[in-house]
Amino acid sequence: MLTIDHNDTLTAARTGTLALPHGTIEVPAFMPVGTNGTVKAISHAAVDNMGYRLILGNTYHLYLRPGKEVFETYGGLHAFSSWPHNILTDSGGFQVFSLAPFRKIRDEGVRFRSHIDGSYHHLTPESVVEFQRTLGSDIMMCLDECTPPEISYKKAIEACRRTTAWAKRSKVRWDIEREAGFEGKLFGIIQGNFFKDLRKISSEEIIELDFPGIAIGGLSVGEPKETFEEYLAYTSQFLPSEKPRYLMGIGTPDYIFAAVENGIDLFDCVFATRTARNGTVFTKDGMINLKKAGHALDKGPIEEGCTCQACTRYSRGYMRHLFKAGELFGPMLATEHNLQFLYDLMVEIRHSIREDRFSSFKKNFLDRYVKKGN
Amino acid sequence: MLTIDHNDTLTAARTGTLALPHGTIEVPAFMPVGTNGTVKAISHAAVDNMGYRLILGNTYHLYLRPGKEVFETYGGLHAFSSWPHNILTDSGGFQVFSLAPFRKIRDEGVRFRSHIDGSYHHLTPESVVEFQRTLGSDIMMCLDECTPPEISYKKAIEACRRTTAWAKRSKVRWDIEREAGFEGKLFGIIQGNFFKDLRKISSEEIIELDFPGIAIGGLSVGEPKETFEEYLAYTSQFLPSEKPRYLMGIGTPDYIFAAVENGIDLFDCVFATRTARNGTVFTKDGMINLKKAGHALDKGPIEEGCTCQACTRYSRGYMRHLFKAGELFGPMLATEHNLQFLYDLMVEIRHSIREDRFSSFKKNFLDRYVKKGN
Repeated sequence: MLTIDHNDTLTAARTGTLALPHGTIEVPAFMPVGTNGTVKAISHAAVDNMGYRLILGNTYHLYLRPGKEVFETYGGLHAFSSWPHNILTDSGGFQVFSLAPFRKIRDEGVRFRSHIDGSYHHLTPESVVEFQRTLGSDIMMCLDECTPPEISYKKAIEACRRTTAWAKRSKVRWDIEREAGFEGKLFGIIQGNFFKDLRKISSEEIIELDFPGIAIGGLSVGEPKETFEEYLAYTSQFLPSEKPRYLMGIGTPDYIFAAVENGIDLFDCVFATRTARNGTVFTKDGMINLKKAGHALDKGPIEEGCTCQACTRYSRGYMRHLFKAGELFGPMLATEHNLQFLYDLMVEIRHSIREDRFSSFKKNFLDRYVKKGN
Repeated sequence: MLTIDHNDTLTAARTGTLALPHGTIEVPAFMPVGTNGTVKAISHAAVDNMGYRLILGNTYHLYLRPGKEVFETYGGLHAFSSWPHNILTDSGGFQVFSLAPFRKIRDEGVRFRSHIDGSYHHLTPESVVEFQRTLGSDIMMCLDECTPPEISYKKAIEACRRTTAWAKRSKVRWDIEREAGFEGKLFGIIQGNFFKDLRKISSEEIIELDFPGIAIGGLSVGEPKETFEEYLAYTSQFLPSEKPRYLMGIGTPDYIFAAVENGIDLFDCVFATRTARNGTVFTKDGMINLKKAGHALDKGPIEEGCTCQACTRYSRGYMRHLFKAGELFGPMLATEHNLQFLYDLMVEIRHSIREDRFSSFKKNFLDRYVKKGN
């Protein structure tokens, strides 16, 4: 499934290809988030044209709306949303914990109320695998219990134990689907909160289950950046090098560099698209807020040399006007730019790894990005 | 400026080409509305690719935001909004009357408060021509006084008289701009409310001023459809056949057919794009609301045979899901469809005129459109 073509000499960074049911992708790769079967404010055609071959869908959202019957009718999420390449779906666990107005976790599964209409639902490790099979996910995730920073050790143990138990049940259910011909891969998720012994135990237990890929969950959930980096490095060391490694929920340049440096192959985040809709865009000199008055008469593009529609056709002044006027074309263009920026960054990162200059590229990029940013 | 290549044998419908500073367009033509220098929820590139060569901008909005300094800096609306083809701008009069929270009309001009920030502004026929010259409009409109149905005869006379006086002053100001090398055309606007003698007087007075083109204003402002058709036919008879004729503010199939039948060459309306953003789209069987539950499992496109992205790539069920989930891609796709629908309708209308079968095409189209519509 994963073919590593180059290992960095100074860090754990590596490049390779990941063979999935809907085609092969180059890693390390950033995945745009398509929560509801659409990456917000941009067409799948544009995401495809940029070069993205793997996007993420949210099981929690798709389970609640449009729901299973729709995906059964259309034959899965690829056909429904007209996306010909790969789709990774999360397990819905994170959203149950962060979005649902009520949840009750038992060993059997999690009962929760929909944030949309207040209706009650019950998810189990088995039903989550089954729903992701209905979606036709190329990579599906095990139901896990993601916990916020600063919970007690006792609660963290409990979540860690439950995550392993659910992972085992997920794998049993996935094996049944595989035997029936389903080609999607199931990834296990490491939890353990911010306790190193629990991170180690969770890593060992999840790795033991021999999933095709391993994800690190429960990081970038509100902890300080130093803590994130410490726990990322600590957890990464346990991961088998021959399997794809997925760090859930990160997608800013500094976190991306940290992930790649620790040998992570895949990551996703809503940040690029969400912040774009608020008028904030990536540049090599840091993020800029297009709404600021200083851009009103600026004839330059967001980023000189960027190949996106916003940068090749429009000025910062025009972009500012769109956001000030509340025009949808503002979010549309800014989304396109931010996704192009991250796509191009990943291309550059992969080149730098193959040419054994990842660390210097990281330093040069972040020096400029962090120093000049506002 | 206008070359008529065919006159329908049964009606006043005609086809031809209109030569404007940014290229030649085929008429009769529908103009998408790009209020703030963008057609809402769609890129100029997509509007261009469909074949549109003339779009409308709103002077009132652009004057208030981003304002004159921006257009002076960027060298006009074409450069600012990256639209290489023609732009018609209205005079702002209609918006002052419909949007501004306060207005005071005097012979000198109109004083009003901005609906955006409450600031006070003053527009005169001269300043409106000057601002449209700054925009670089290919077709600019005279400041006029548009009145709603059921006002008194006395008020209608007054608005009619003022519209003519303002048209004269607009023409004087435009002549100065032309002598300075400005190539945009100025169109006069006929008013007269729903009084035939005033419509006749206004027509005679505006036509007398020998503008390059004539617009009919003050129709489709809330009156019954029969009244609209009666006053359209009554006013159209006075228009010189050799000049382009523009009917302001209409853009549904039934009103488009009525306009074309009366020899109208140009029309614009926000309806197609506004209603798209609410999930309502044109089909040959009438308009449909994509939010309806009945579409949830519908695998068919909005309109079989339509070449737009929505119809070639997505199902009604997916479109419904996007609107139910509040995803921006719903308005984006629906906007594209509605503009494609009207573009295709205009192509078919022009063909039918050239082949002397406009009346039968109209009957067949509207029979299906009106009977099956919901």
